[in-house]
This record gives sequence, structure tokens and C-alpha cells, in this order.
Amino acid sequence: MVAPALLPELWTEILVPICAVIGIAFSLFQWYVVSRVKLTTDLGASSSGGANNGKNGYGDYLIEEEEGVNDQSVVAKCAEIQTAISEGATSFLFTEYKYVGVFMIFFAAVIFVFLGSVEGFSTDSKPCTYDTTRTCKPALATAGFSTIAFVLGAVTSVLSGFLGMKIATYANARTTLEARKGVGKAFIVAFRSGAVMGFLLAASGLLVLYITINVFKIYYGDDWEGLFEAITGYGLGGSSMALFGRVGGGIYTKAADVGADLVGKIERNIPEDDPRNPAVIADNVGDNVGDIAGMGSDLFGSYAEASCAALVVASISSFGINHDFTAMCYPLLISSMGILVCLITTLFATDFFEIKVVKEIEPALKNQLIISTVIMTVGIAIVSWVGLPTSFTIFNFGTQKVVKNWQLFLCVCVGLWAGLIIGFVTEYYTSNAYSPVQDVADSCRTGAATNVIFGLALGYKSVIIPIFAIAISIFVSFSFAAMYGVAVAALGMLSTIATGLAIDAYGPISDNAGGIAEMAGMSHRIRERTDALDAAGNTTAAIGKGFAIGSAALVSLALFGAFVSRAGIHTVDVLTPKVIIGLLVGAMLPYWFSAMTMKSVGSAALKMVEEVRRQFNTIPGLMEGTAKPDYATCVKISTDASIKEMIPPGCLVMLTPLIVGFFFGVETLSGVLAGSLVSGVQIAISASNTGGAWDNAKKYIEAGVSEHAKSLGPKGSEPHKAAVIGDTIGDPLKDTSGPSLNILIKLMAVESLVFAPFFATHGGILFKYL
Amino acid sequence: MVAPALLPELWTEILVPICAVIGIAFSLFQWYVVSRVKLTTDLGASSSGGANNGKNGYGDYLIEEEEGVNDQSVVAKCAEIQTAISEGATSFLFTEYKYVGVFMIFFAAVIFVFLGSVEGFSTDSKPCTYDTTRTCKPALATAGFSTIAFVLGAVTSVLSGFLGMKIATYANARTTLEARKGVGKAFIVAFRSGAVMGFLLAASGLLVLYITINVFKIYYGDDWEGLFEAITGYGLGGSSMALFGRVGGGIYTKAADVGADLVGKIERNIPEDDPRNPAVIADNVGDNVGDIAGMGSDLFGSYAEASCAALVVASISSFGINHDFTAMCYPLLISSMGILVCLITTLFATDFFEIKVVKEIEPALKNQLIISTVIMTVGIAIVSWVGLPTSFTIFNFGTQKVVKNWQLFLCVCVGLWAGLIIGFVTEYYTSNAYSPVQDVADSCRTGAATNVIFGLALGYKSVIIPIFAIAISIFVSFSFAAMYGVAVAALGMLSTIATGLAIDAYGPISDNAGGIAEMAGMSHRIRERTDALDAAGNTTAAIGKGFAIGSAALVSLALFGAFVSRAGIHTVDVLTPKVIIGLLVGAMLPYWFSAMTMKSVGSAALKMVEEVRRQFNTIPGLMEGTAKPDYATCVKISTDASIKEMIPPGCLVMLTPLIVGFFFGVETLSGVLAGSLVSGVQIAISASNTGGAWDNAKKYIEAGVSEHAKSLGPKGSEPHKAAVIGDTIGDPLKDTSGPSLNILIKLMAVESLVFAPFFATHGGILFKYL
Repeated sequence: MVAPALLPELWTEILVPICAVIGIAFSLFQWYVVSRVKLTTDLGASSSGGANNGKNGYGDYLIEEEEGVNDQSVVAKCAEIQTAISEGATSFLFTEYKYVGVFMIFFAAVIFVFLGSVEGFSTDSKPCTYDTTRTCKPALATAGFSTIAFVLGAVTSVLSGFLGMKIATYANARTTLEARKGVGKAFIVAFRSGAVMGFLLAASGLLVLYITINVFKIYYGDDWEGLFEAITGYGLGGSSMALFGRVGGGIYTKAADVGADLVGKIERNIPEDDPRNPAVIADNVGDNVGDIAGMGSDLFGSYAEASCAALVVASISSFGINHDFTAMCYPLLISSMGILVCLITTLFATDFFEIKVVKEIEPALKNQLIISTVIMTVGIAIVSWVGLPTSFTIFNFGTQKVVKNWQLFLCVCVGLWAGLIIGFVTEYYTSNAYSPVQDVADSCRTGAATNVIFGLALGYKSVIIPIFAIAISIFVSFSFAAMYGVAVAALGMLSTIATGLAIDAYGPISDNAGGIAEMAGMSHRIRERTDALDAAGNTTAAIGKGFAIGSAALVSLALFGAFVSRAGIHTVDVLTPKVIIGLLVGAMLPYWFSAMTMKSVGSAALKMVEEVRRQFNTIPGLMEGTAKPDYATCVKISTDASIKEMIPPGCLVMLTPLIVGFFFGVETLSGVLAGSLVSGVQIAISASNTGGAWDNAKKYIEAGVSEHAKSLGPKGSEPHKAAVIGDTIGDPLKDTSGPSLNILIKLMAVESLVFAPFFATHGGILFKYL
Repeated sequence: MVAPALLPELWTEILVPICAVIGIAFSLFQWYVVSRVKLTTDLGASSSGGANNGKNGYGDYLIEEEEGVNDQSVVAKCAEIQTAISEGATSFLFTEYKYVGVFMIFFAAVIFVFLGSVEGFSTDSKPCTYDTTRTCKPALATAGFSTIAFVLGAVTSVLSGFLGMKIATYANARTTLEARKGVGKAFIVAFRSGAVMGFLLAASGLLVLYITINVFKIYYGDDWEGLFEAITGYGLGGSSMALFGRVGGGIYTKAADVGADLVGKIERNIPEDDPRNPAVIADNVGDNVGDIAGMGSDLFGSYAEASCAALVVASISSFGINHDFTAMCYPLLISSMGILVCLITTLFATDFFEIKVVKEIEPALKNQLIISTVIMTVGIAIVSWVGLPTSFTIFNFGTQKVVKNWQLFLCVCVGLWAGLIIGFVTEYYTSNAYSPVQDVADSCRTGAATNVIFGLALGYKSVIIPIFAIAISIFVSFSFAAMYGVAVAALGMLSTIATGLAIDAYGPISDNAGGIAEMAGMSHRIRERTDALDAAGNTTAAIGKGFAIGSAALVSLALFGAFVSRAGIHTVDVLTPKVIIGLLVGAMLPYWFSAMTMKSVGSAALKMVEEVRRQFNTIPGLMEGTAKPDYATCVKISTDASIKEMIPPGCLVMLTPLIVGFFFGVETLSGVLAGSLVSGVQIAISASNTGGAWDNAKKYIEAGVSEHAKSLGPKGSEPHKAAVIGDTIGDPLKDTSGPSLNILIKLMAVESLVFAPFFATHGGILFKYL
């Protein structure tokens, strides 16, 4: 019997929900600040406030005041466009959730029936798996609670995505309006709105999980093994919704974007976000349903899964066996500390420093990452000191491994810092401030073909350091604390999720703000400011994707470990035919999945192109700006296409573990999980960085800041046209297939984990009868 | 003690070399037939012969006779161009071999020193590893013989590549001249020349290996374990030369091709292979050094490695322990039978049937695959019946597994038929007779971006069935006969290598023939015929690459198994930190390698573009055709670039196993090998199919055979321009990075196998001291 953690159980019971509530309160406060930017034509108060602020450091007045433009009509236009975007996004999400809801009910039934069948729907208690002296609750109960946890995870995920979208569409026009006062003002609105989403998601994810554990505990009592097995349903729910969000949203946004660009930019030679383009509203809606709602659900899923993986391993380690509640809650304490750390970090961007010029934007965002990582390192040390016994044992595939608290501290830290490294490497390869993207831009001189060759090579190369960072994290955390170590390393990487999501959501908000400025016919100087915000947003979006992929790799390994533990396997030997074919086929799945999603974007974009061409050809006065395009039809095309096209890739991911586990058994399934993990992470990183690099290479040529960039431009030059082609190719890579792969690898792992008892009992029927 | 094989040892000793000699004789005979097409201006005999043949079934007369063109000058021009191509290729290969020679000497020394150090350079005999009652030769002897085998393998590989190139450049102009008599005549010349290479390579590879074994046996005597360990050097030698051949040749050919296309086709709007393009000779040279010499070395390497992997596992199985020479030589007997089967198969193309119209070309080539596979199935049955005991045991990672002869027959067959399936799937995805390529062509309507998106999606999708075919082969062969089964499955896939290489080499020969027709200013009707030959060649080249990749996957798994056996590991458990990080990093290596090779092609192509542009801008009368371009400078640029650029990727592949094995040990190295295998095979297949599809989508639009194709064309239309961009992007994918990955996965595995005793003794120093 080892000594329990320093922190008494009662304190843990109080501290975790308090931190979660603080996070939610902070989020609401940020929302309140954003809401003070009025979006009504009654602009008296806000405008004068703005003018006052305009003097304290920015030196910029409202550009309209200088240029004598009618302020009222601009605000009204912005409000109108924002409403159109918000309505389009809401309508898409409701349609999506309708279909997803049907799936959820069906899949909840599958979970209940499959898990219930493990002991033939018996209601009798049974001896526990890992501690046979105790009695555990029947499998039927775990089936029921897993189903409830699944539904809770799914609902929380859906709410996260939906609220994120609401906030983003609430903030985009406000960012545009603030851009009139200065780039710093606009930055803060966009950033605060991102923070609303980040904190809301991190805190509510924690709170729901915490409450669920405590409610389930009332039934399970001492049977922590069963309790935390049931909790894994929460991760599955979160991630399966994220799959549909990412894939559906990703197809939506890129069908609209690619379709709008192909006709607008290339054929008609009108600028991006031009209000004459019929697909422009759909494109802006897409940013919100894909990058915001999709990303939110995705990271929520990672967070939920990492917590579940850690908890389920802990429940069969000394924490669970000795009923040390504080130590058991170590993953939740890390997340609680993360909320506080991110809160302080946010103040650095919103209150301690002010952005005055464009070139301060990127450093400000990067500093957020550095500050949160440094403070969090201290936070982890505190949590590890008070929340863990000095020495304890962790389940390690059949044996128990002795671990010290400082070792677990190192596990969390290595994940946290690996995240930072991945973030910076991603930035290096996707920001046009560095040579890789500049080289890609330079290759546009010889046309689109060399641009694509260099871009693909850049993406492949950008994989190297992140993979080493992930490998080192895995080695350190695995060596110290087996799969529990990997799970907490993943949590370490995700501990600053509130900040990560804030800078991530900032990107699409700025992108939309630029679109609204263009559509509302605002001055080109405002457009320049929003473009600067957007360029930084491209890089942070890439960084966010890097984080998401890195954490997904750790999370799925942790889930894989938990699955293997729960399925009762002690080795996954590559030198057996069952495992090696699993490995090979698993490594193929990301390609299959990418082929589906890319083809979907391509087909949906072709439909969009036809519709946009039709409108340009048949609506008189459209090119001249005297007639309005029919935005609604384009929104409908994107909606219908994405709903229809998300089904096959969704089925591939959801059915593969079930089919492999049921027909081929747990060894082959282990191989499939390991194969898809090691292969998927590479494609995901390279796809999103290639796409980000092409996007910023194009922006580099357009901005024409340096001599080199000027020699390639201006807009409309041959190199620029080549760059636009690269950008268009990158769209589905970076916003659909790449980021969806995170979910592929995580979701297959968590699904295997949830169904592990079923596979262990009834799986592998093909080999049983052969 | 089990009963030995039916076939007496003496017969085996006689039959294997006889089959090899028959193969060489058949190859020389084909060469003789090709050489009867005279390439001198003294054309009397041949031309009249041609005219006679022209009447027997073809109905075509010499087009020049009809059009009244001066026959003599055309022949002289063809001869001149052929000489230029041949000289360029020879000069490049000699330069390459000079550098590679230095590497070979250096690496031979490394092998000797590293393997010699295993027992501290002791000259004492020692007890054998797997049969400790016997005495085996000292490690120093094995180090010496391994080094000799390495040099022999390297020299044979270099000779295979060089002779292949010589034959191809001998045949290309002859194919062009025969095209005047009819498409069937031209086809037969190209095909026979391919057969020369195929049979020469298959037979000489077998003969050298056979002689080496028999010579080494004089020293080793009863110590078959040591003997066949030393023989593994042969595979390493073959494959390391193949690496440089593939990478160097691949960069050469694509730098020239991409450079020529970017300026010629896109900027200057002149046709492919136009003699005014300064890079045109370099482009044609490239086909010979890349697709012919590189492919030859590559497949020779696969063949040598598969044989070595099978032999080394057999030597520690009952074959080796009981000294059953015939059963031990089973892999060589399979290859001997393969030569005879391919010989019969070739007669179907050259003698039994005649090609009369263009559309018969592709079926004729495909029939070669089907016929050889069907006959070989019978051949394998015979060899398995007479060459194997009815029951025997195979080494299975520490235990011995009982295997029946019919099980081994199934192992070889499953590999053979998997090869055929991979071939047909590749054809389906890369031939423009089917919907996938037609869809890609159709997507060119909306520009280059959608073309690239659809092409990438096609490549990803084309991975699915081949991976299942490989997985099933592995599962069947592994389940029946452990790693020996996998090795003979690989040999099964490679048993029809002579036919495979013949149809593979046919492609670049036809491509060159078309180029020569264009450059010699021959009638467009001749160009149409060579284009038809070439289009079929594109598909067969893709099929050949599919074969190469499929066999590489099986070979490297077999080598991996042999490595693990030799390193004394019994399990490679994914659930250990050492293995999982190896797996992750191994899966990353193909991306790193592809990034290097693609960037190299890009950079070299940019240099070529500058030179071609310079010549067009500074040589007066070049565009008008009154002045001659400076071909030699372009040849030099390609040569220099490829030599310089092949070093970093070469080092990556050669050093990774040494560094990982030495510092991290055999477990991590196992992970790296498995990771690079499962990840590399996917990228290799998708890259080469994407490239093949783009190439044929472009050809589909150009040929304009169907209504659909006509609506996209003609040459110079917007969809055609988009198709050209796709084709250019595909060039480095399908001819440089894709096929080089075969070698990456094989070479790392065979290198690990050769150095296994060193790593087992001195490896993993990082973990020893941590």
C-alpha cells in the first residue's frame, strides 16, 4: 500500500469544478467584451468610444471619417452579410446534426447490444478482471453506462462545435468594423472571440466529464474498473461527432472555396470574396463550419479521448486499486491547471501588451504559445507534486511498473514541449517569413507544375522534425510510465488547449472579417489590415493543425495501449501474420480515406463551378455589379454535397474496427491501429503543411513586401496564377483530408477500446472457423 | 530425418546452370534478330526485305515509298540521333559508376571491418548458432566472403543496367525504322529488345548466384549457415547499386524531361521531342538511364535479395541442417523454371501471333502477363513436386515449423498471382481505356488544380487492392511457412521477371523511337504509330512499377524476417517503446526520402529551364529550325545535377540502418524496417499510379479517339494545358521518388540483414549506457 497524494480527496472534488467554472466565466466575460462592439446602425456610443480608443496609442482614426464614407450604411451592410453567413452556417449544422443524430441513435444501440452481449446480457455481478478478489458490476451495466457516456460525449462535442460557430459568426463583422480603428483593435476582437471558444470548450469538456464520473460513481461505487471503462464511451461520442464535423465541414468549406476560386479568380479575374461571386457566402459559411465547428469538435475529441485513455489505464493501476481519488483525477487536475494557465496567458495578448503595427501580430500569437508552455511547465510541477503519491505502480500490459511522481511530471512536460516544437516547425514551413515558403513562391516562376512539385516536397520534408518530437515524447513517456505515460503526455500537449483553440479560431474569424470588408465595399486600407490578420491566421491555423495531429498521434497510441490492456493482449508481435497484415492494411487506410475525401471535394467543387458559371452566364448585370447573385443555391449545393459525401468516409472509419475486430480478432485489429497511426500521422502533417505553404506562397506574392516578392507579382502575373493553382490544390489537402486523418486514427482507436470486451469475447470468427 | 527431394543433387547441379545458359542464349538470339534491322545508309538488303515482309499480312508499304521522301537521309538521321543518345547515356553511366565505384570500395571495407569485428577478428572456428553441436567458420571468414559477394552483386547489377541501356539504345532507332513497315513490325523490334534485356538479366543473375554459391561451398563445406550468410552480401551489392541507378537515373531523366517540357511545350508551344528543343537529347538519354538501367538494377536487386532471404532462412531450416542440396536450391529451381516459362511466353508475342493494328498492342502485352502466370503455375507445381521433400521443417523465429511441399507450392503461387492482380489493377488505374483516367482527363475542364486533386485521389485509391493482394499473399505464405514462405512468395512474383522486364523495357524503347521519329522529321503517320506503341508502353511501365513495388514489399518483409532470425530476436513487440518509435520514424523515412528526390528533380529542372531558355534567347534561328541547339550542355547539366543530388538520399538510405542499429539496437531497427515497409509501399504505389494516370490523361486528350476526348482537346486547348501541368508534376512522382522507394525499403532491410551479427554484438550502445 503506497501513501496517497498530498491533496485530500475533498479538495480535488472542489478544485476541479471550480477551475472549470472559472474557465466558463472567463469565456463569458470575453464574449461580453466582444459584444460591446455594436453591430447596429445606432452607432453613436460605440463609435465615439472607438474614436476615443483610437487616440490612446493607435493614432488611427476611423478611415471612413477621413474618407468621408457613410458610416451607417457600411455597418448595416456588415450586419447583413454577417446574418447571411450565420444563417447559412446554422442551417448547415442543423442539417448535419439531423443526419448525425440518426447515426448517433443507431450507434448507441450498437454499443449497448455489442457490449451487453459480452456476458450474454446477464445482470449478475462478476469477479473483476484485474483484481479477482473483488466483485465488479455486470457487463450489461457497463454497456448501459457506456451508451450514456457516448451520448453525453456526442452532445458535448456537437455543442462545442455549434457554440464555436456561433461565436465566430458573431465576431467576424465586429472584427471588420474594429479594423476601421486600427489593426490592434481588430486583432483583439478576433482574438477574444477565439478565446471565448477556447475556454468554453476546454472548461465545459472538463466539467461534463467530471460530473459524469461523479454521477456514474454513485452506481459503480468501488468498482472503478467498470466505472472508467464506461467513461470511455465519452471519448467515442466526442470523436465520432468530430469525424462528421471535420469531414462534412471540410467538404463544405472546400467545395465552396475551390468552386468560388476556380470561376472567380481564374476565369473571371475578380478578387477573392468579391460580392459578385455567387459562391462567396458559401465560402465564408464554410470557414465557420469547417475550421471552427470541425476543429472545435476535433480538439474536444482529442481532449476527451486522452482523458479517457489515462483514466482507464489508471483504474487498473495502483490509483484505481487503492482508490486514491486525487491521483486518479490527475488527468483532470492537469486540465484544470491548464485552464488557469491559459487564462493568465490570454491576458498577455488582451491586456498586458498592445498590437500597434501589422508585423506585431504573428509574434503576439507565437508568444501565446511560448508563454502558456512556460507557465504550464510550472503548473504541471505543482499538480504532480500535490496530486500524486511520490511512488506508485502503473499497469504495463500484464505487469505493474513502479513510477515516481517526477517521472510522470516529465511525461506530461515532454508532451507539452513537443507540442511547442511541432508548432514552431509548422510555422517555419508554412509562414512566408521563412525560406521554405519563399522557395515555393519562387518556383512559381516556371509555372504551376514546379510550384506543385516544390510544395509537395516541402510537405514531405516538414514531417521530419515533428515525427522525431513525437517519437521522443513517446519514448520518454512510454519508458517511464507505459501507456499511462503516453496518455498524460497527450494531455500535456492538450493542456494549453484553450490558448491553442483561441489562436486557432482567430484565423477563420479574421478570414471572414476580410471577406466581409470586401463584400461591404470597405476601403482597401481596411482590407489590407484584415489581410494582415488573415495571413497570420493562416500560419496559426497550420500550427493548430500541427498540434491537433501531434496530440492525435499520442492520444491514439494511448488509446491503443488502453485497448490492448482491456482486450487482454500482452504483446503485439510484428512477426506474426495476423499483425503484419493488419499493419500493412492499417497503413493503407489513410490513403483510402484521403482518396474519398479529396474526390468528394473535387466532385462537389465541380458542381459548384457549374452553378457559379451558370449564374455568371444567365444573370444579366452580375459582372457589372448591378444585379445580385443567388447565394442561396450555392449554399444549398455545398450543404447537400457535404452531407452526401461524408457518409462513405464516415462508414470506412466507423466500420473498419468493427469488421476487423469481429472477423479477424484483436491481434489484427492491433496491427491495423498501429499501421494507421504511423502512416496517417505522416500524411496528415504533410498534407496540412503543403496546403498552408501554398496558401501563404500565394499571399507572399500578393502582398509583395520584399523585392523578391515584387519580382513575382503583382496579382494576375503568370507566377501569381501558378500560385493560385497551388493554393486551390492545397485547399482539400489542408482543410479536408489532412485534418480528418487525425480523427481517423483517434476514432478507430477509441472505438476499438470501447468494443474491446466484445472483440475479446466474440471477435476473430474468421480464424476460429478456418 | 526427413526424406530428401525427388530430384537428385547432381541433376540440380546440372539443371540450374543449363536453364541459365538457355536464357542467355535466347537473349543473344533475340539480339541477333533485332540486329538484322540495318541502321546504315546501305539499306538495299534490309529495305527490300522489309518491302517483302510488308506484303505478308501488314498491307503497309514503306511510307517513304508512298510519300517519295529520301529514304537514305532519314536512316542516316536516325543513326545519328541514336548515336547521340547512346553516347550521352554511356557517358552518364560511366560518370555515375565512377562515383558509385568509390562508394562500393568504401562500403566493402565497412562490411569487412564491421562483420569482422563481431568476434574481434578472430580466425578460430566457433560452434554454430543454430546447431551448437557443429563447428562453423569464423566470423572473419564470413566477413571476407560477404564482402566478395557484395562486390559480385554490385558488379552484376551494374552490368545488368549497363547492358540493358546498350540494348535499348541499340533498338530505339531500329524500332523507328521498322515503324515505316507497320506497327506490328515496330512492336516486335521493341519487344524483342526488351526480351534481350529481360532474359540476360534473369539468366545472368541466376548464373552468377549459382557459381558464387558453388565456389563459396568449396571453403565452407558443411557450414551452410555461414555459407548462406555470406551470400546475403550478393543481395546487398545488387540493391545498393540499384539505389544509385534508380535515384541518379531518375533525377537525370526527370530533370531533362520536366525542363524540356516547361520551356518547349508550355512556353514555346513546340511539340514534345522537337529537335529544336536543346534538352531533347538529354530527355531521351534519361529514358535509357532511368527507366532502363535503373529498372534493370532495381529488379535484379529484388531478385537477388529474394533469393538470399530464402536461402539464409533455408540454411537454418531442415534443408540446411540435413544438407538436402536440391531442396536448398528450391529458390534457384523456381527461377530456372521461370526462365523456361518466359521463353515459351515470349514466343506467343514474337512468333505465334502477329500484331496487325494499333489496338492489338495493349492486349498483346497484357496476354504476356497472363500466359506467363498460367504456365508458371504449372512450372511451380513441377518444381515443388520434384525439388522438395513431401514434408520438412522451416525455421520460425526460434522454433521449427512443419511444412508440406504443397503448402510451399501455394506460397509461391500466391505471390505469382498477386503480382498479376497488382499488374491488372495498375493497368486499370493508369490506362486511358478505363474510367479513372478518363475522369482525371475530364477534370482538366476546370483547370490544372482539379486535375491535380483528382490525380492525387486516384493514386491514393489505387493503393487499396494491391495492398489487399500483398496482405493476402503475406498472410497465406507466412501462415504456411513463416518467413521462408514470404521469401518464396516474393520469388514467385519475380519468377516471370524475364517477361516482366521485357514488357517493361519495351516502354522506354518505344518512347525513344517516337522521339527519334520526331527529331528525324519523319512523317506524322510514323509518329502516330510510335505514339500508339508509347501509350501502351506507359501502361506497361506502370504495370512494371506495380510489380516492382509489390515484389519489393514481399522481399523486404522476407529480408526483415531473415534479419530478425539472424539477429536472434524472437518477437518484435509494438507495445515496447523501442519498437513503436522505430515504427513511427521508419514510416517517416519514405517522406524524407521523397522530399529529397522531388526537390532534387525540381532544382535540376529549374537549371535545365534556364539553360533551355538561354539557348532559345541567344541562338539566332533556333526557333526557325535554321540553327542547331547545343544539346551537350543540357546533357551535362542533367549529368552533374543527378550525380550531385543522388548523394543525400543515398546517404539517408545507406546510413539509417547503420545509425539505428549501432546506436539504438536491433529492436528499434526492426521497428524502422517494418515502419518504412508499410508506409513506403503505399507512397510508392500511389506516386507511380498518379504519375502514370496524368501522363495517360494527357495522351487521352491528345489522341482524341472518343467523342469525350475530342471535347477536351485538341493539343493546345485549355484542358490540354491543364493536363500537361499534371503530366509534368507526375514525372518526378512516377519516375524518381515513387520507384526509388522500392529500393529504400529493400535496401534498408538487406543491409540490416548483412550487418545483423554486428548489431546483435555491438549495437544499441545508446541504451546500454543510458
